[in-house]
Formats: sequence, C-alpha cells, structure tokens
Amino acid sequence: MGMNEPLNRKLRMALVGGGQGSFIGRVHSIAACLDNRAVLTAGALSSNPERAKASAPDYGIEDTRAYTSYQEMLEAELKLPADERIDFVSIATPNHVHFEVAEAAVKAGFNVVCDKPMTYDLAQAEQLLETVQSSDVVFALSHNYTGYPMIRQAREMILSGELGEINAIRSQYIQGWLVEAMEHQESKQAAWRTDPSKSGAAGAFGDIATHAYNLGRFMTGLLPDQVSCHLKTFVDGRRLDDYGTAIITYENGALGSVTASQITHGRENDFEIEIDGTKGSLKWRQENPNEMIVRHNGKPHQIYTRDPKAAHINAMGRAACRIPAGHPEAFFEAFANVYNAAFDDMAKRACGETFERRDSVYTNCYDGVEGMFFIQQCVASSQENAAWVPLRHEAARK
Amino acid sequence: MGMNEPLNRKLRMALVGGGQGSFIGRVHSIAACLDNRAVLTAGALSSNPERAKASAPDYGIEDTRAYTSYQEMLEAELKLPADERIDFVSIATPNHVHFEVAEAAVKAGFNVVCDKPMTYDLAQAEQLLETVQSSDVVFALSHNYTGYPMIRQAREMILSGELGEINAIRSQYIQGWLVEAMEHQESKQAAWRTDPSKSGAAGAFGDIATHAYNLGRFMTGLLPDQVSCHLKTFVDGRRLDDYGTAIITYENGALGSVTASQITHGRENDFEIEIDGTKGSLKWRQENPNEMIVRHNGKPHQIYTRDPKAAHINAMGRAACRIPAGHPEAFFEAFANVYNAAFDDMAKRACGETFERRDSVYTNCYDGVEGMFFIQQCVASSQENAAWVPLRHEAARK
Amino acid sequence: MGMNEPLNRKLRMALVGGGQGSFIGRVHSIAACLDNRAVLTAGALSSNPERAKASAPDYGIEDTRAYTSYQEMLEAELKLPADERIDFVSIATPNHVHFEVAEAAVKAGFNVVCDKPMTYDLAQAEQLLETVQSSDVVFALSHNYTGYPMIRQAREMILSGELGEINAIRSQYIQGWLVEAMEHQESKQAAWRTDPSKSGAAGAFGDIATHAYNLGRFMTGLLPDQVSCHLKTFVDGRRLDDYGTAIITYENGALGSVTASQITHGRENDFEIEIDGTKGSLKWRQENPNEMIVRHNGKPHQIYTRDPKAAHINAMGRAACRIPAGHPEAFFEAFANVYNAAFDDMAKRACGETFERRDSVYTNCYDGVEGMFFIQQCVASSQENAAWVPLRHEAARK
Amino acid sequence: MGMNEPLNRKLRMALVGGGQGSFIGRVHSIAACLDNRAVLTAGALSSNPERAKASAPDYGIEDTRAYTSYQEMLEAELKLPADERIDFVSIATPNHVHFEVAEAAVKAGFNVVCDKPMTYDLAQAEQLLETVQSSDVVFALSHNYTGYPMIRQAREMILSGELGEINAIRSQYIQGWLVEAMEHQESKQAAWRTDPSKSGAAGAFGDIATHAYNLGRFMTGLLPDQVSCHLKTFVDGRRLDDYGTAIITYENGALGSVTASQITHGRENDFEIEIDGTKGSLKWRQENPNEMIVRHNGKPHQIYTRDPKAAHINAMGRAACRIPAGHPEAFFEAFANVYNAAFDDMAKRACGETFERRDSVYTNCYDGVEGMFFIQQCVASSQENAAWVPLRHEAARK
Repeated sequence: MGMNEPLNRKLRMALVGGGQGSFIGRVHSIAACLDNRAVLTAGALSSNPERAKASAPDYGIEDTRAYTSYQEMLEAELKLPADERIDFVSIATPNHVHFEVAEAAVKAGFNVVCDKPMTYDLAQAEQLLETVQSSDVVFALSHNYTGYPMIRQAREMILSGELGEINAIRSQYIQGWLVEAMEHQESKQAAWRTDPSKSGAAGAFGDIATHAYNLGRFMTGLLPDQVSCHLKTFVDGRRLDDYGTAIITYENGALGSVTASQITHGRENDFEIEIDGTKGSLKWRQENPNEMIVRHNGKPHQIYTRDPKAAHINAMGRAACRIPAGHPEAFFEAFANVYNAAFDDMAKRACGETFERRDSVYTNCYDGVEGMFFIQQCVASSQENAAWVPLRHEAARK
Repeated sequence: MGMNEPLNRKLRMALVGGGQGSFIGRVHSIAACLDNRAVLTAGALSSNPERAKASAPDYGIEDTRAYTSYQEMLEAELKLPADERIDFVSIATPNHVHFEVAEAAVKAGFNVVCDKPMTYDLAQAEQLLETVQSSDVVFALSHNYTGYPMIRQAREMILSGELGEINAIRSQYIQGWLVEAMEHQESKQAAWRTDPSKSGAAGAFGDIATHAYNLGRFMTGLLPDQVSCHLKTFVDGRRLDDYGTAIITYENGALGSVTASQITHGRENDFEIEIDGTKGSLKWRQENPNEMIVRHNGKPHQIYTRDPKAAHINAMGRAACRIPAGHPEAFFEAFANVYNAAFDDMAKRACGETFERRDSVYTNCYDGVEGMFFIQQCVASSQENAAWVPLRHEAARK
Repeated sequence: MGMNEPLNRKLRMALVGGGQGSFIGRVHSIAACLDNRAVLTAGALSSNPERAKASAPDYGIEDTRAYTSYQEMLEAELKLPADERIDFVSIATPNHVHFEVAEAAVKAGFNVVCDKPMTYDLAQAEQLLETVQSSDVVFALSHNYTGYPMIRQAREMILSGELGEINAIRSQYIQGWLVEAMEHQESKQAAWRTDPSKSGAAGAFGDIATHAYNLGRFMTGLLPDQVSCHLKTFVDGRRLDDYGTAIITYENGALGSVTASQITHGRENDFEIEIDGTKGSLKWRQENPNEMIVRHNGKPHQIYTRDPKAAHINAMGRAACRIPAGHPEAFFEAFANVYNAAFDDMAKRACGETFERRDSVYTNCYDGVEGMFFIQQCVASSQENAAWVPLRHEAARK
Repeated sequence: MGMNEPLNRKLRMALVGGGQGSFIGRVHSIAACLDNRAVLTAGALSSNPERAKASAPDYGIEDTRAYTSYQEMLEAELKLPADERIDFVSIATPNHVHFEVAEAAVKAGFNVVCDKPMTYDLAQAEQLLETVQSSDVVFALSHNYTGYPMIRQAREMILSGELGEINAIRSQYIQGWLVEAMEHQESKQAAWRTDPSKSGAAGAFGDIATHAYNLGRFMTGLLPDQVSCHLKTFVDGRRLDDYGTAIITYENGALGSVTASQITHGRENDFEIEIDGTKGSLKWRQENPNEMIVRHNGKPHQIYTRDPKAAHINAMGRAACRIPAGHPEAFFEAFANVYNAAFDDMAKRACGETFERRDSVYTNCYDGVEGMFFIQQCVASSQENAAWVPLRHEAARK
C-alpha cells in the first residue's frame, strides 16, 4: 500500500473509455486506485465529446483534464511539466479501439494498461508488440483473474512442481446473459460485444474464452501445440459465436479444454478451472474466489483459503492478500493486484531501473498476442469443422 | 414397495459374478432386494468354482443353488418347477463375459439385468439386441444414475419442454483412482478394467464416459449426429485410455461434451452434468444427488431437492422417492429404482401383459447398443486424430 | 453382509406399527433387511386390525403372521417352534405406545429395536431399563444418525484424543414442515407429533432435539451437568413446542447448545453438529452426510469423505461403509448400520455368547433413559424461565 | 461513485490509529476512498509519535498532516481554512481510546466514523450519544457487515413484510485464531483484544458477538426484551471470554441466539445468520457474501445473488452493488457502502441540509449505545449464571 517504491509518489492515471454505461471503466478506476498507489488524473472517457466531458465528474477528473479524445489527451499531457503529466493510460474501450489508443500511448512514451482482448485482430497485436518492444514503456494487459490470491498461489505451487507433471487443464467460463438477443434490446454491452466490427472475429470466445485460456497458461506455464475448436451461435441473427468448446494439446502431452457459453440461463460469471497433475489436482471457481480445493489420492480434500498467515500459503499467494483469512477479497482486489504488479515496474522505469518485460507477474503484451492468436486459430479451426490448427506462436517462446 | 403388481409375489433373482472382491455384485444384490420386491435365490458368483461356492453364504444363497457356472445354473433352474425357478439373472461380471451370459439367459427365457457397458464390443451388442428382440424377456441395463430422483425429475422437465429447446449438454465424469498404475498393485478392479481383453476397446471411456453419454441421452432424448473424440493414456504402460474428451453434435443442432478422467487426484466419483435450454438450465452432481440447480435468467437460482411432497416435483421425480425431503437417498436407492422399473415389466410379462421395450423407464438393450456404438466411435475418432465420425445408430431411432 | 456370525442364518424380524401412511415403518423394514441379515417375517402393523391386515402384503408379510395386535403377535410367536419364531421386534409406533410394546416384547424374551424417543415419559423409560437389565435381550434404540460413517469416524477420532479436550458442541436441527398448523390439515404425521397424549411432554424437542443431544453424547462421550432450556410454540393453538434452544454444561467444563426448529420455512431435515476441541474442530451436516470438515488452525481445511480405503478413515468409519468413495450412502444405510450392530449382539445372544450392554456401538436402553431425562429436564427448565436444572442421570454413568 | 452530491467535491478524511501492524486502519482507508468520494488527508496514526510519523507515507499522507496525536491533529486542522480542513475523522484505535477521540472530534465539529464497539463501556457510550445529539455532526459506527448487498436486500425484504412475522434469529460468529494463547506470542491484535483495560468488559462478545447482535437488529428491526448469556474462557490465563452464547427474547415474542467463538480450530471469520419468518426464512454467510438463501415451504430453495439487474433484487440491494452479478464484491466493498451512506449525510450537512440521525442506513451512535448495552448485559447475565437481564435500552426506542 501507499507510495510506489522507489518512486515515492502516486502514479497519475488517465482513463480512455469508461463513459456512462460502462462497467469496465469504473472497475479500472477503482482497482488502480484501491491501494492508494495511483490517482485518476485525466481521461478521454467517451468517443462522444459531450459524454466524455459529462462523465468526468463521476470519476473526480478535473474539467481541464477531461479530454474529448485520446489524441487530444496525449498531445495535451505531453505538453505538461513532467511532474504533472500522467504516468499511464488505462484503455477501457470496446475492443476495436484498443490498438490505436495503445499504439499512440506507447509511442508517446506512456505506460499502458489495456483491457483484453488486446486488439481487434492478430495483426494489430503483433504490430503493437513490436511497438512495445521498441519502446521502454510498461505494458500490462488486464487479465484480471490472474490477480486472485488463490490463482497466484496455484501458479507458484505448479511451477515449483508441487502437483507434479501437468496432464490436464479443464476450464469452463459459463454465462447466461446473452441467451436472448440482448443486442436488440438497448443493451450497450451486448451490442458491441456481438458486433464483429467492434468485437473482432469472435464473440464468447473473444470475450471470455480468452480469459479461460490465458488463466491455464498463467497457472501452468505449459506451451500449447494445437487447437481444435467448435463454435456455435445459438441465438438467431447473432453474428458471432455465443458458445463453443476448444480442445488444446500442449507440448508436454497434456490435454486442455476451454468451454465458453453466454447462453446458459442464470449462470453469471461462472468461470472455473481444474488442473490435474501427477502428484495432485486442484479446482478453483471465480465466483467463490477465496477458496481453492487441492486433492491428493487417499488424503482428505484440502480447502486452501486466502490466509496470508498460513504456512501452506506461498509467497505469491501471500503477497496478493490485504486482510486476514475469512475477510473475503474479491473482483476489485484481484484487478488491483494486476495493477499493483504493473505499478512496481512503472516505478522502476520512472527511476531508470530495469524490469522484466516477458515474464512479468502481470499479464503483458506477449500474453496479448497469444490471446489474439488463440482467438484467430479457434475461429479458423471452427470454420474448418474443428480441424486441428497450430497454437504455437513465437510470442509464447522464451 | 412390496409385491409386484399384478404378480403378487417377490421375484426370484440369480446373480452371475459378484464373488469375493467384487463391488458391483453386492450393489446389485442390495439394490434388487431393497424394496422387498425380489429375493436373491441363486447364483453363479465366480468363474472359479470354489470361490463361486464359497461366496454364496455372504449373499444368503442356499448351497443347492450356488452354482459353479452360469451354464450349470441356467440348466438346473430350467428343470425346477416354475414356481421355484428364478425370474431374472443379474450379470455383474467383467465386461467381456456379459454377452455370453446374457445371450444364454435370454435364450433360456429368463429376464436379464446386465451391467454396463452391455458387451465387449458393438457386434456382440447388436447380436444381443436381436436375440432380445426375438424373445419376450425383459432386458434392463444398469445405467444406475438414471435412477436418481433428480435425474428422473429433470428428464420429465426437459421432455415436457420446461427448459425449451436444448442447446448444450456438458458432462464430466472425474475420478482419480487410476492415477497410479494400480493394475500392478493387486487391485482386481484395476486389473480387469485396464485389460483390453476383458474391458473392451476403451478404458475410462468404456467404464465411465458411457454413463455420462447415456445420462445426457436419457435426460434430453436428443438424437446424436457425430462425435469427435480425443483419448489419452497418461499412465506409463497402461493399454487403455485413462482420460478423454468427446465433442458430440446432436441432430437438433445442440452441442455436447463428455469428459472422463481416471487420473485426477482425489476425485472420487465426481460425475456432473449441465444442460442448457432456451428457457432454463440445470446442473446436477452425482456426489450430492439429492439436489439439482435450475436456473433462469433474472430469477433466483432454484435448488430443487428430492421432496416428494413439493408441487414442483413431477410424477417421475416423486415416484423415485421413498422418504421425505431432507432424508437423503443415494446410490443404492437409485440403483434400486432402475430395478423396480424392470420389475414392473417382469411382473407384466409373467402375467402375460404387454410392456414397452424401447422406451422403458429403465435403460435397456437399445441403450446398450448405443453405448457400445459410442465407445466404438470414440475410439475410432481418437485413432484418426479426433476426426468426426457418425454417431447415429438405428438402435436410437424410433 | 450376509449371515449373522456365529449364528449363520438370517434373523427374523417383526414390525409393530408401520401401517399405511407411516414413514418410519418402511425405513425400519428396508434398513433391517438391507444387508441381507434379517427377513421381515411378522407384523402387527396398526392398532386398527383391518389396517394391520391390509398393510401386510406391502411388507411381504404372509397373512398368517400379520397380526392384529402386538399382544396377539407375541403370544402366537411364542407358540411357534424356536426355528420359526421371530428373533426381534421393531417398534415404529407413535411414542406413547413404545413402552407397552417394548416391555411386553422384552418380557417375552424377544430382542427389541425401538424408535426414539424411547418412551412417553421418564418413568416409563426407567422402568423399561430395569426390565431390560433383568433380561438377557438385546435392546437397541434407533438413533439412526449415529450410524453414518462420518459420525462413527468422528467418534473414534474424538475418543482417541485427535481433537484434544472438547470445549464446545453446537448442534442445530432445523425443519420447516410445521410452520403451518399441519395438524389440522389431515397430516397424520403432524397430528400425533403435536398431540401431548401421544408424543409426550415435548414437541420439537422430543422429536428432533433428542437426536441432536444424543449425537453429541455419542460422538464425544462427554457427561452432561446441567441444562437451561427455552421452548417456544409459535404456531397458534399448538400444544407442544415447535422451537427451542437448550444450553448444556458438561462435567469437563465444555459448553453445548441444541437448537431445534420445526418452523423454519423450507428447511427439510437440516441437522448439523459442530465440535470444538483444543487440537481441532469438526463439522458435519446430515443432508450431505458423506462429508465432514475437520479443521486445524493454520492448515488447509480438510474434507473427510466416506472413503473406506483412505488411511485417515479409521476402523469405525471404515466398518460403516459398503461401497467405494464417491458412491454416496445415505439415510437407509446409516439406519442399517445401527441395525447391523444390534444384529451382531443378537447373534451372540442366540449362540449363548456375552455382549456389551452399556457401551454398545448401537444406541441402547441407557441412551433411551438419558434421552427421556433430557426431554423432561428441558421442559422443566423452560417452565421455570430457562432455569438451570440438573442433567446428570445415573443411566449415563459407568 | 464520484463527487458527493450536493457538495460536489471529495471529502477529506483523517485517520486515528492504523499504524504499522494494524489491520483495520488500512481497511478504513481503502473503504473510505474506494468510490472516489473521499481522500485521506491527515492522520494521527499511532499513540507512539515516531510510529505515527513513520506510518504516514504508507497511507499517502503528507508529512505536514501526519500528526503525533489526535489532539494535535484536531487543533491544527481547526486552524486551517475551511476548504482545506478535514471533513471527518475515522477512528481505528483499540476500543479503550474510541471515546476520547470521538468525543473530542465531535466537539470540534468534525464528522466521525468510529470502529465498533463504540466505546470502552456503556457510560462512555451514553455520554458520547449525548454529545453527538447536541452537535450537528454525522456519526457513523462501522458495523461493516451491514454494508453487504445481500444484507441490505434482506433488510428491505424483512421490513416490507416479505418474510412475515419474524419468529427467530440465529447467529453464529465463529473464529479460531485465539484457541492458543496468542496474546503471549507477540500478536499485537491478540494482546489488546484480550486485555480488559483496552478491550472492555468482554472479549469475544465485545469483538464479534456485537456484530452478530447488531446485524440481527439491523436486518429485522425487532426490539429486544431480555438476554440470558453464558460466557466462557477456555484458554488458561486469559482474562476475557473467548466463547459464549446469548439467548435473546424480542418484544414481539421472537427468540434469538448469538454464539461467538474465538477458539474453534480453523474457522476464520465464519459469521452466519438465519432468520425465520412466518412466510419465509433466509440464511446468509459472511465468507460467501454474494449469496443468500431464501426458503419457502414446498418451493425450490432460492439462491439470491448480488445481481443488480434482477427484478427480485430490491432498491436497497441494488444500490449496494457496483458491478454485475457473478463479479464478486466483498469485505472492502461492504465497508465502503457504510462509508458511502455516511458520506451522503456529510455532504448534506456541509450544504446545510437536514438528515436522519436515528434511522440512518449506516449504523450510528444509537446502535453504538445498544451495542455497549448488549455487551454490559451479557457480562452481567453471565456473572449471575446466565440469569435473565433486561435488554431494552431507550437508545433503541423511536
């Protein structure tokens, strides 16, 4: 909590997107500022200039720094003295806008925290990665579920070999909100997510399956080999998938599956992941995130809880906790953990220190490319009747 | 409970298999006799004559009717007066023996309750179906999970349209007991289940995925179209699959998935199924079988419990209950429900009444053929790198 | 399973009560016969002679042994040759009839399995204990929840000191079925349970709090000291309590609580118990009986499941299991475990062997006296505004 | 989110207590600032001047406003221009210090948000209430569990009669962290909580039973009549209770119970409450706070989730949500909801508008008096062997 070592001041945040009706803009704002390490200073909150201005007071952004476009914002901020200027730009727009904002922000030298999926398509993602690589900015992708303490705990357990060799990863991300054609019922959220020109090549697979795939990668580090994917659109007239299953082979011989649904009545944000190793297995569910079940044959099932004082909670898990066991932390706090990891690097950068760009604790631009490749290949496989297509991308290679 | 209308006496049961070390033999015996409608009268409890004799007292079978082979048993029983003779034969042997026993029993005119999978391979299954069709016996297959009250409840809900059009069926059957090479550690159960000469073409898929596939079929009535399956053997030296995932397309456009694992540490008999319809969705888990969750967007999640007095419990659900809500019924009682449905038809047959052979409440010989076809096609698909193969079999057609 | 060593034959059961409309009669019948160790041979199924006769076929009792009163039954059975005569009498009548049937059966030399609470009042219970003590019969009381494998497991853990010194026992037995005046709505079950002339001095406390109190005693062996009880009747016109809380002090300084409700909407048979020791704590819930949670500070919570092969499942727990982990056993099987323990002693008695009368695995006549004393003292305390009254009874002393 | 209407600026917060090693100080800081309506501006973070100064950077408090005592702080802040001065003081010290800080802050005209229990003893509480009543400040007490959306939902349901007449309230607040004598193991948290000179007359009952009692009052509005309480100290040498049960009668005839434990191995912050009404019942558990179960006889159990868009979520529930269903909100967000309600009134006060002091949405000074009276009377009852003592206090009367 508090100041960003070694910088010793709060970081100044700018938000792009997040105007009225946005859910994710507010999440970014709360999460980034939760631990008092950042202050929301500027914003280009909507592509509609009037709404951009009108939304600013809600966020406590002063009118002079409530810009009507991200271009205007970047230009104006660059003119400010360095000790007033924003440090980073958070991008909370619909998917098709991510690339241009991120590219411009990086080129202007600002750190970026970008919503997932990173871009509209793979080509943009690869270009953005190049831009980031040739810059010195911190680039974080908000795969927020990687910020949950139990996920961090699991990752360290797996990478240290506690579960043995990993044989299988099963993930399901099940929602119900699009079982009716909400896109025709004035739901802004539904409208852009089901519009290929804004959302990209995939619907449910771009919106939520990417989280599921990414989380398995994050937790296990397994490198993918191939994918066979079957996408479905169950709602009449919808232009993107609202359901699908992908089977993934990993280089080490493990088998993975990702199922995503937006048409399962009553399911809210029901994302769960199960991982099988030769020495143990685990299961975690996002809607009850303070628990994880770890199992070993012949032993009692073990419920790990978010308990920063317990000996079985490792350093990664402990570092992601704020308060004692039994006092649940949840979505905002996990999101904030992703931000905090990025802030560590932003502070280092500001002080001229080096930081790890590829294997950062926060998901980053490399993960973003992988995510876009996953989407592209799932769509490609599905178009060929679930044929196997490669899932190896150099962005995943060390 | 009690007498079998209109027969008005208990039915006489013979058990084949079930000798010492058997788990499923005892289950058949308890389940068949639970409601006082049958009495275990004869047995050929082991292929080893000594053990066949020695196991009889445990079952309360008199020595004179403890036979040393099923052939001897069928012959001897046929010689008994009709009012002493057994009524039905329950087959609880390893898979490769099912066919010969069933075929012989049917030809001898005895009703049969056979363990699943029905036979060693599809050819046997098809032949057995023919034999059954040309006889007048009752033939039940013990897909015992179909006997749970909540499953019966769900089936009636779905068939009556309460959930709307069915879009998706997801099932997972996860166990851990074979994560080590138990077959080399004196586990009789493990030994035959991992031996292709006894178990058939598939391991986990023959043993448990068949249950998962069957239950989806039972609950929804959806007719399958194609399957793409990926089987894995994770334990070194094992000759059959211990993990796999099948993607199934249904004729109505629905998408299904069946995942089976025997290598997930600490998971016991963790079979769950989720069904998505356009009007509602449901979820059920075998290890907590007295509950089922039914969901509708925008409404509280509904936990249906095994409550025979509640208005929302339909006739099928109610008929499968013995005792009031909150007094859990479980594995044996579900198994007994399958038997009871078969007893209804056995009593009819004994009284010369007709009964429904194809669409019986209990799973039957048609289901058995479908199950063997499912196994065969999953193995075939997996051998061709998860290619799509047909899953339509005439046994499923009306 | 099977024959009763060293007797080597099934025991012959007679059922008193259990006529049409009874829930518990069928439970006794199924439970007693589940493992093939007993056969239901005779019955006096109703105080109404016609119904007594008419109910017999449901139970598979031959007409000649379907008696119209328990007196007739005892007399007739005594005249039969010893190798046809019943071995034990199960009493499943309303409470006020237990005593006379039990007394007569014991005096006639028959073993008895009696429903709880054991008698109508304490005086009867004490007299019955004397009668039993001066006889050589086996007398079991069907506190069926003591038969669950996880409860047996917990008992052995606690008695062996695994949880350290016991500090607290919290139990809640919550139902909702009497929140309306069912006794005026043709519910036979409700009618007698709310009628002081049939049920005894207490309503909810006689029907369900006795289970909760007994289970704590069974699991811990702690000797009670005093009780303070507050009973309530929330439904207008009802003559017995339908809600209450008792605070219990134990001789070792532990504190206990028992809460019983029959007026909590939608709760079915929601009986849970929590036990705190200086080295560990546990929690078990009847509606999900195959699990128990064991906790130790600073360690993962441990879910013990009914796994007869697991090393942490002790001999008592293992002996109460029939089938592998993950195949749930439930109410009937627990009930049958109580019967089986009594059968062990009945077989010993029949063969002239001695058996333990006080510290039997099954709950017995001593427990029955304690239970009646608990009810009496709870009512007495409540009538004096929850004053402390003694709860030590010599029946509990060794 | 955002500015405080009609004030249109952030409120300036001062924190008293919360120095290094404090858990609750950080909670106050994060919760108050979560929605961007307040900024932490000043602090007197420790009674140790050096630590007070040293702790400030963690909170982002500038050195000039990091005071070494609350007296210094109040004096200095009063001298600042009104548009720089703090608006409210949050008190996160051990209990025995609450009174003097609160009294001084109120007298200085600052709004106060005070940790519970409000004071060291009842006399202080009553005096503080008088002081508050004769002032015009906003005084909030941080009974944070009242801020959970499901609790707000339940309150509105109950007050509007959805559950009918309330018959029973059962609450349990179970922890395990003090099962060993942590107070002798350098745990600062344990040390003051078990020290009567700092904690007050009660241990577990002052720390956590107050929450349980308050939540029942908050949710139902029932007025208490009498209490009978049994407190225990299980850990040798401890000077305050670490376990206890209170039975509470309410004026309408309802019966309540509050059990608090700090000695139950492995239980974290396991606070649950059950409420029985004549038309329905509900159950909520703090460790899984986004769910609440509502039950009605004969209907499926209903799981209400934190779903701001669902029709069955009422205005109170909806207003307490930030993000869509399935995206869990937890401890910090609930705490922030209490702050936000207080902020509404602080903004009104600053603009000269009136606000409701007694029946505020946030728990307030009246609740604080009730809480202290509850503690006093529980201790008094326990000292007289759980005698009934009055629980009516005029602070609860309208």
